[in-house]
Amino acid sequence: MADETTLEDEAMRAGDEAAQADDRPDDRVDDERHDEDNRLKPEYLRSVVAALDEDDPALVHELVEPLHPADVADLFELLDSDDRPLLAAAIPDLMTGEVIAELNDHVRDDMMEALGPEAVAEIAEQLDTDDAVQLIEDLEPAEQAAILAEMEPEDRAAIESALAYPEETAGRLMSRDFVAVPEHLTVGDLIDYLRDAEQDDLPTEFWEVFIVDLAHKPVGTCQLSWIMRTPRATPLVEVMKRDQTLIPVTMDQEEVGNMFQKYALISAAVIDENGRLVGQMTADDVVHIVSEEAGEDVLLLSGAGDGDINEPIREAYVARVRWLVANLGTAVVASAIIALFGAAIEQLVALAVLMPIVASIGGNAGTQTMAVTVRAIAMNQLTRANTRRMIWREMRVAMLNGTTVAVLIGVAVALLFTPQLGAVIAAAMVINIVVAGLAGVAVPVIFERLDQDPAVASSVFVTMITDSMGFFAFLGLAVATGLAG
Amino acid sequence: MADETTLEDEAMRAGDEAAQADDRPDDRVDDERHDEDNRLKPEYLRSVVAALDEDDPALVHELVEPLHPADVADLFELLDSDDRPLLAAAIPDLMTGEVIAELNDHVRDDMMEALGPEAVAEIAEQLDTDDAVQLIEDLEPAEQAAILAEMEPEDRAAIESALAYPEETAGRLMSRDFVAVPEHLTVGDLIDYLRDAEQDDLPTEFWEVFIVDLAHKPVGTCQLSWIMRTPRATPLVEVMKRDQTLIPVTMDQEEVGNMFQKYALISAAVIDENGRLVGQMTADDVVHIVSEEAGEDVLLLSGAGDGDINEPIREAYVARVRWLVANLGTAVVASAIIALFGAAIEQLVALAVLMPIVASIGGNAGTQTMAVTVRAIAMNQLTRANTRRMIWREMRVAMLNGTTVAVLIGVAVALLFTPQLGAVIAAAMVINIVVAGLAGVAVPVIFERLDQDPAVASSVFVTMITDSMGFFAFLGLAVATGLAG
Repeated sequence: MADETTLEDEAMRAGDEAAQADDRPDDRVDDERHDEDNRLKPEYLRSVVAALDEDDPALVHELVEPLHPADVADLFELLDSDDRPLLAAAIPDLMTGEVIAELNDHVRDDMMEALGPEAVAEIAEQLDTDDAVQLIEDLEPAEQAAILAEMEPEDRAAIESALAYPEETAGRLMSRDFVAVPEHLTVGDLIDYLRDAEQDDLPTEFWEVFIVDLAHKPVGTCQLSWIMRTPRATPLVEVMKRDQTLIPVTMDQEEVGNMFQKYALISAAVIDENGRLVGQMTADDVVHIVSEEAGEDVLLLSGAGDGDINEPIREAYVARVRWLVANLGTAVVASAIIALFGAAIEQLVALAVLMPIVASIGGNAGTQTMAVTVRAIAMNQLTRANTRRMIWREMRVAMLNGTTVAVLIGVAVALLFTPQLGAVIAAAMVINIVVAGLAGVAVPVIFERLDQDPAVASSVFVTMITDSMGFFAFLGLAVATGLAG
Repeated sequence: MADETTLEDEAMRAGDEAAQADDRPDDRVDDERHDEDNRLKPEYLRSVVAALDEDDPALVHELVEPLHPADVADLFELLDSDDRPLLAAAIPDLMTGEVIAELNDHVRDDMMEALGPEAVAEIAEQLDTDDAVQLIEDLEPAEQAAILAEMEPEDRAAIESALAYPEETAGRLMSRDFVAVPEHLTVGDLIDYLRDAEQDDLPTEFWEVFIVDLAHKPVGTCQLSWIMRTPRATPLVEVMKRDQTLIPVTMDQEEVGNMFQKYALISAAVIDENGRLVGQMTADDVVHIVSEEAGEDVLLLSGAGDGDINEPIREAYVARVRWLVANLGTAVVASAIIALFGAAIEQLVALAVLMPIVASIGGNAGTQTMAVTVRAIAMNQLTRANTRRMIWREMRVAMLNGTTVAVLIGVAVALLFTPQLGAVIAAAMVINIVVAGLAGVAVPVIFERLDQDPAVASSVFVTMITDSMGFFAFLGLAVATGLAG
C-alpha cells in the first residue's frame, strides 16, 4: 500500500484546507436520485416527466442540472420517445457532447434526425473524433455529407479518414489524440515538452507516451507513472518498454478486446499498413467494446438481432421474424419426420405424447454445448490446436448426461406405460444427447472455419439436428422394435 | 492529433539512435508463433509437444522463452493436462507470477494442487494482492491456511483482508496499491513526493492520484496527465476533479463494470463502510470482469453452468445435468398436456405431426424476448421506471411476429391438410407467440425483483410456458372447433 504517513502528518499540522472536505459533492451511489444499483429512481423520473407535462422548463432544468452527463443520457433513454425532444429543449446548455456520446445508438439516431445538419455538425465539433464518428456513422450518406460539409476542414478530414475504415475495426474506433515523441529525448526533455504551455493541442487525458522513430513507427512506450518516477537525465530509451502490443488499424474490435484482456493493457498504439503510428485505443473504450461483443453473443444465439430495448419496433420485428421463419423451416423438417411415422402414432398414441420430451432435452443439451463452444471461440480459447480434445471432452459429458437422463425417463415410462417403451425412450435419449453434443461443437466450429460468426446461425442448425434426430430415433426405434407401426 | 513536428525535426538532426529502430522486438501479431487472430499456431504447439515427448527440456525452454507471459499461460491451457506439469518443470525460470495470474482458473487450480503450500506461497508473494487472492480463493480452507502460514505477515494480512469480503465484490477484487496524498499539496509537492527515490513502496504503474482528507476520505482525484501539464505552484485542490466516482467495497463486480462503462473510467477509488479510501479498481481489471459477466449470461441462459472448456468433466456434468433434469420436468408437464388430448390425436394424426411446430416457434420467440430482457437488466437499462413500456413494446413485436408466422404456417397447412386445420394452427401460433413475449419479459423481471439472477432460471420457466401453451392452444382449439376429439 502507498506509504503516505509523512505527508499525512504534515497535513495535520498544515491542514486548514482539510476542513473544507465537507463541501465536496456526494458520492454518486445512493443519493436521492439514484437507487443502490446506481440507476435513476422511478420517483425521480416521474418528477421530471411531471415537470415536462406541466411545461415547466425551469423546473426540468433544476431537476436535471445536478446529474452527471452519463446520467442525463440515461434519463433520455428512460423517457418515452415523445418526451425526449421536450427534455432536450428544456436543457440546451446541458446537452453537451458528453451527453450525446453516452446516448444509446438508437436514441441518438432519433434525436439526430430531429436536428438539422448544422446543429449536428456543431455537436460533432465538440466531440473527440471517435465519438463524432459514432454520432454520424449510422446516418444516410446524404445526411453524413451534409453534416460533414458544415464542419471545420480539419475535423472533417479526421472523421472522413475514420469512416474510410470498416465498421468495428480499430481504424474506426481509435482515438487520433495521442502523444508521440522521438526516441532521442531524455525524461527531462519529455517533461518539458509536455509542460510547454504552447503545446495546447496535446490531449488533456493520456496515460502513456509513445516513442516513435523517424518513419513514425512506434519503437517503445512509456507510462506516465514511470516518467514521474525517473530522474530527468535518463534517456527515454532506457525507461521505455520496447515489447509493446501494437494494434493493426484493420483489426476487428472483438480481437482488440481480446488483446486488452490478454495483455492487461490500459492503452495501446494503433498502426497503419506501413507500421506507422496513427492512433491509440484506451481501456475505457475497450470496456464498452468487450461488453458489447460478449453481450452480443447472448442476443445472436437467441436470434434477437441487435436486441436493444431502444431499437425501433419495426427493426426489432424484421430482425426477429427472419429468425422465426428460419426456425419454422427447421420445425417443418422435424414435422416431416413425424409424418413418416403417422401409422405408428395412430396405433400407439403414447408415442405422440412422449416424443417431444426426447426432442426437447436433446435441444437443451445441444444448446449447452453450443454456448460453451461459441464462448470459447470468441475468447480465442478454442483453436485448431485443441478442437479434437474439445470434441472428445463434450462426447464424454454427453455420455454422462445422456445416461442419467435416459435412466430417469426410461424408468418413469416403463412404470407408467410399458417396459419396452421405457427402453425405447431411454435409448433414443442417449442417442439424441450424444448427437446434440457433437452438433453443439461441430456446427459453430464449422461456421468459424468458414469465417462466419458462429453465434449467428449455429442455433438454427443445432435445433434442427436435435429435433429431427429426437423424433427419428424415438419413433424409428419404436417401429424397429415392433412396438407400433 | 498530437503536434510533434518540432520534436521530429530535431530528431532528424540529432537522430543517430533512431537507426536502432530495427532491433526492437516484432509486433506480436502474425509472427511465426501466432496466427492472424493472435492465437498460438497448431504447428508451434505441436513442436512444443514433440519436445516434451522427447524429454528435451532445453528445446522446450528455447521454444517458450520468446513468449509473452500471457502466451505462456495460453500454451498451458492448450496442452493436455498430462503435459502441463512437464512444461512447468522444463521452464522453472519462466513460471513468473504473471504467467500464473493469467492462467485459466481451472488450469491454475490443477497446478496449485500439484505444488506444495510452500511453493504456492512463494508464487503468491511475487504477485499483487488481487492476483494472489485469485490464486488461493478457490482452494479448500485448510490449504489456504497452510499457504497463508508460509507467507510474510504483511502479505498475509492483505490477502486475509481481501478474503474477508464476499467473492466478486470490489473488496475482493481491488488493488491495495495506490497513491493517496493530502489536499494541501501543490502540484510541485506532489511531483517531488512521487520522484522521491525513498518512496520505493509506491506502485510502479498508476494513472491517477487520489487526494484525501485527514480522515483518509477521498476528496478529489487527479490524473497524471493533468499534473504533467500544470505549473508546479498550482495547489492540487485547483487541478483535481472533485466529482469522482466512488466504489463501495461491497459493490458487486457486475455493478463495478457498469460504473466503469457508464462513466468511462480508467481507475476509481474504492471506499469502505466509513467512506475511507482503501483501494482502487483499474480499467485493465474491469475489462476482464465485464467480459466475464457478459459472457456468463450466454452460458447461464443455456444452462451450461460455468461453461469453461477447461472445467473438469465431472463439474461440467454436474452443472449441466441439473439443468437437463429440470428441463425433463418441464417437458413432462408439456407431455401431460398432450396426453389430455390423446383421443383427438388418435382420431387426427395430423395434430401430432403439427403440434411441435407451434411449441417450437413459441419457444424461439420466448427465448428472443428473454435474451433481450436479461441483457437489458444486466446493463441497468431496464428498471422499474420503464418496465411497463418494455412489456408494451414486446407485445407489439409479438403481434407482428405472430401474425407473420401464423399466415405462413396457416396457408401451408390449409393447402396441405384442410383450411380448418390451417385456421386452427394460425390462431394457436398467434396465441403462443404473444404468450411467449409476455413470459419472456415477465419471468426475468420477476426473478430480478426477487433478487435472483434472471439469467439462471428464466429459461426453464419460459420454455415450460411456451411448450405447454403451444400444445394446449393447438390441440385445445382443434377439439373446440370440432376438428377432432
